[in-house]
Amino acid sequence: MTGVSDGESVSLDLLKKKMAEFAQERDWDRFHSPRNLLLALVGEVGELSEIFQWKGEVPKGLPDWKEEEKLHLGEELSDVLLYLVRLSDICGIDLGKAALRKVELNAIKYPVSMCKGSSKKYNSNSNNSTHN
Amino acid sequence: MTGVSDGESVSLDLLKKKMAEFAQERDWDRFHSPRNLLLALVGEVGELSEIFQWKGEVPKGLPDWKEEEKLHLGEELSDVLLYLVRLSDICGIDLGKAALRKVELNAIKYPVSMCKGSSKKYNSNSNNSTHN
Amino acid sequence: MTGVSDGESVSLDLLKKKMAEFAQERDWDRFHSPRNLLLALVGEVGELSEIFQWKGEVPKGLPDWKEEEKLHLGEELSDVLLYLVRLSDICGIDLGKAALRKVELNAIKYPVSMCKGSSKKYNSNSNNSTHN
Amino acid sequence: MTGVSDGESVSLDLLKKKMAEFAQERDWDRFHSPRNLLLALVGEVGELSEIFQWKGEVPKGLPDWKEEEKLHLGEELSDVLLYLVRLSDICGIDLGKAALRKVELNAIKYPVSMCKGSSKKYNSNSNNSTHN
Repeated sequence: MTGVSDGESVSLDLLKKKMAEFAQERDWDRFHSPRNLLLALVGEVGELSEIFQWKGEVPKGLPDWKEEEKLHLGEELSDVLLYLVRLSDICGIDLGKAALRKVELNAIKYPVSMCKGSSKKYNSNSNNSTHN
Repeated sequence: MTGVSDGESVSLDLLKKKMAEFAQERDWDRFHSPRNLLLALVGEVGELSEIFQWKGEVPKGLPDWKEEEKLHLGEELSDVLLYLVRLSDICGIDLGKAALRKVELNAIKYPVSMCKGSSKKYNSNSNNSTHN
Repeated sequence: MTGVSDGESVSLDLLKKKMAEFAQERDWDRFHSPRNLLLALVGEVGELSEIFQWKGEVPKGLPDWKEEEKLHLGEELSDVLLYLVRLSDICGIDLGKAALRKVELNAIKYPVSMCKGSSKKYNSNSNNSTHN
Repeated sequence: MTGVSDGESVSLDLLKKKMAEFAQERDWDRFHSPRNLLLALVGEVGELSEIFQWKGEVPKGLPDWKEEEKLHLGEELSDVLLYLVRLSDICGIDLGKAALRKVELNAIKYPVSMCKGSSKKYNSNSNNSTHN
């Protein structure tokens, strides 16, 4: 039904096409302006935050979460992703290409030889130090 | 250099692997707890919003934006994506699978026959009507 | 009932006291850690954004909004404010004093003689130019 | 200089007037549309989140933070507040009145007799349970 046998190989391009079809079939393209989509994304980030808001620190892998909570989390993570993919498409940005480029820029900005064993990025007080 | 010839085929799994390698090489895994990553994602959504904040409404495709502005936009969209991919991984969520499932849930929630030509979702005043 | 005859004179200190009482009466202090409150604030910003997300640009004063919509908007703006006041209190920050100081810092950063008739702050492409 | 002798008595009305004057003196009213201000607020929430993003859980009162970090935090909390006050003003919402009303609505929604000693609001898995 989804055209892929497992989630591992899901490409950004596949999601872009699915979102474009979804909007077109419903005649929703006219609502999908850049700033409308951006605010929708912010709304979804808010819903994602609500899941974590009263929990204090949670360990990796969420060992104590119920299956139902994890499903809900997956939905909110997906909502953020889907609006992000749609926003990129509407802005004419190739998100996959941009993301690969950003990983490479980050590798230049934070060379292994400088960062290994150092938490400078994470402990500095400077306003800009934590920007990726 | 990126291992793919073009951005169209970039999969979420590829990005997940790149992010995991990136953190491991720099010994940054210890900083990548779920709530740390979530707040980092919120920070990046803030930077994305700053790009659009004083512009008023902008048309699809951003026809009047300079190349430099589009590159910057692509970087901020990517930062949101990369933290989203990493957060999902650290939480043990298969983001690609979850996103495909969410598209299908949305198709059930908003059937074409009910939505076509209707903007009910977008015009309702009800608090919950706009949640995807 | 609220101890003030009209909303105009509401002080940040009054709201701080009301929030502290509210939490104490319910034994909720233990949930109000800095990062819990911050994520709750992000959640409320998401709900605020949802109100505006599909509307395109809206004029000042919201002339076409129903009374019910404006009430809802007032509630979401308040939720953001109340968590912001609470977060500041829990962090030991005097928000009123800090806000007055920030207004003065902004006046120094953006002198009238330089800014009057100029929209430089708003039109620049530089990443940091739009930070207040 | 600020017209008040201490931050405790700072009213929302005072901040509203200061923000309105600030914008008018610089001829910035034309940039202050509801959605521009909302996105600016989201940008500031992002900067606030960046302060907390790599810290893990932090205790109340921030006992280990340097004075410089607390000043920075106060500035980011203030930026969120100032845009929130300005957004409310531009939307024609009396934020002080709305906030007092919201505190009363919350008291009705979460009666002491039901909530005291219970953390139901904070532990529930239901999607809507954490909405204030």
